[in-house]
Amino acid sequence: MSNYTHDTVPTQFIEANGVRYAYRRFGKPGTIPLLFLEYFNSNMDGWDPDVTNSLAANHEVILLDNAGVGASGGETPQTVAKMTEPCVAFCRALGSKRIHVVGFSLVGMIAQQLALEHPQLVGRLILLGTGPRGGEGLTFTELSAEEQADPVAFLLAAFFSPSEASQAAGHEYIKRLDSRKNDRDLPVSRDSAVAQLAAIREWGTIPATGRYDTLKSIKHPTLIVHGAKDIVVIPINAFILTEHLPNAQLIMYPDSSHGAFYQHRKAFLEHVRIFLSDGDSAVPDQNAIKSSVA
Amino acid sequence: MSNYTHDTVPTQFIEANGVRYAYRRFGKPGTIPLLFLEYFNSNMDGWDPDVTNSLAANHEVILLDNAGVGASGGETPQTVAKMTEPCVAFCRALGSKRIHVVGFSLVGMIAQQLALEHPQLVGRLILLGTGPRGGEGLTFTELSAEEQADPVAFLLAAFFSPSEASQAAGHEYIKRLDSRKNDRDLPVSRDSAVAQLAAIREWGTIPATGRYDTLKSIKHPTLIVHGAKDIVVIPINAFILTEHLPNAQLIMYPDSSHGAFYQHRKAFLEHVRIFLSDGDSAVPDQNAIKSSVA
Repeated sequence: MSNYTHDTVPTQFIEANGVRYAYRRFGKPGTIPLLFLEYFNSNMDGWDPDVTNSLAANHEVILLDNAGVGASGGETPQTVAKMTEPCVAFCRALGSKRIHVVGFSLVGMIAQQLALEHPQLVGRLILLGTGPRGGEGLTFTELSAEEQADPVAFLLAAFFSPSEASQAAGHEYIKRLDSRKNDRDLPVSRDSAVAQLAAIREWGTIPATGRYDTLKSIKHPTLIVHGAKDIVVIPINAFILTEHLPNAQLIMYPDSSHGAFYQHRKAFLEHVRIFLSDGDSAVPDQNAIKSSVA
Repeated sequence: MSNYTHDTVPTQFIEANGVRYAYRRFGKPGTIPLLFLEYFNSNMDGWDPDVTNSLAANHEVILLDNAGVGASGGETPQTVAKMTEPCVAFCRALGSKRIHVVGFSLVGMIAQQLALEHPQLVGRLILLGTGPRGGEGLTFTELSAEEQADPVAFLLAAFFSPSEASQAAGHEYIKRLDSRKNDRDLPVSRDSAVAQLAAIREWGTIPATGRYDTLKSIKHPTLIVHGAKDIVVIPINAFILTEHLPNAQLIMYPDSSHGAFYQHRKAFLEHVRIFLSDGDSAVPDQNAIKSSVA
């Protein structure tokens, strides 16, 4: 298994609660897996091979199409809370008792909800370009399920800043997305994209009371990574998460938008390595977390 | 020179514009020096030996008492803008044409002003627990020059959070501050502390117009490090700096106050190493900076 890369790893399928999930699994066996779910309107092919391959050197990497997405069966739930259920079913079917969740954008929301509802399942959280429930500007009134009619233009505009350096990084990222030649994932259906957008909007709705109250219960070591010029999920959301999560470290990169961690991936990969290797004794270890969430 | 450590390096003196400056210089010769100035009401002995010694492995380290502070002569200026003048005079006397400035709290303010007024002198900025001119809550109406009557209690309350882990890190830090046994610096005079406080308050005054306008002119690669629970310089200031400085990376550590980088020093030292080694090609190099500020 460990000889596979992002480009060569075969898509596998596993059934849980009557739904057939598509996933890919590679990297260092015997480690706590890093679970990557697709972000809005994307699938397993949307992850940067440079990022997944680099992380696979020290961790098992699992790319998953959640219910109703890409090659997976089932229906895409219309709320973030319900999107956690197929993830949990998938992990149980796979026999994974503990995972680190890498959650970009929509999946950063699912990751928070997973940690809240299933604290024992989640080891650590890596939240990329995401925001808290009821965060700032998260209802996306102008976004539509057809947003990616021209996917390249969409990615360059949303994931990268207008600067020359950022746009150049964007073009390189888009090239890397093509490096997997065979066994590509299926596209996201319109129904799934519509359900995902509904889920994001429900998550982004500001509650009448206790706006950020649940965050204090997510005690997992968390790495928050955000672009200082993110035009999709505005940067203040990352700051709010950092303020309210009891054990979150924030890293914000300059001159970068929603795909900040792709643009600054060299630094990002080093920052993730430090975070996952527990570079600081002041960050509670797994046992401390276990008891604190027990 | 390179065999000295924080604890053993002798205090040296150099004269510039009629003022005799006390400084200590050690670390890797032939590199761009990291200039550490004292923070409010502190002197060369206020830096954590673990931090300075670790950074000295790859960089020359210069600890400096600015004018009127500790063993240095002269008078402490009453504004941040005027505090840059003795720094520049010192660098010229030493023959340093380029320095990286490590600015904690008050000195993070001086560092910004130095970069603004002397862009060629400054290579990179490391801004620790500081804020922009006219930032949030920076006039410190409750702080007095006598604040440190009980320095240990002051440091534990201001630099560390109330959590058990943070207070334990605080006690360790305070122990390390004593590791230099001989040739200690002179205490900060009351006159100097009063002038420093006046300078901080002037800096913190919110201007009538163009509140954060100067920040866009500071194009140097900048690393901002802040504690998510900083009760001295509230964390939103670090976020504002990141928003307005064109090339700043932000790192915010959990459960930590003004001394976040001491508490999380293992991660901090790795983060500084990555920043100074230019871990990301998207961050402009020195030549790019030279031309952009020329």
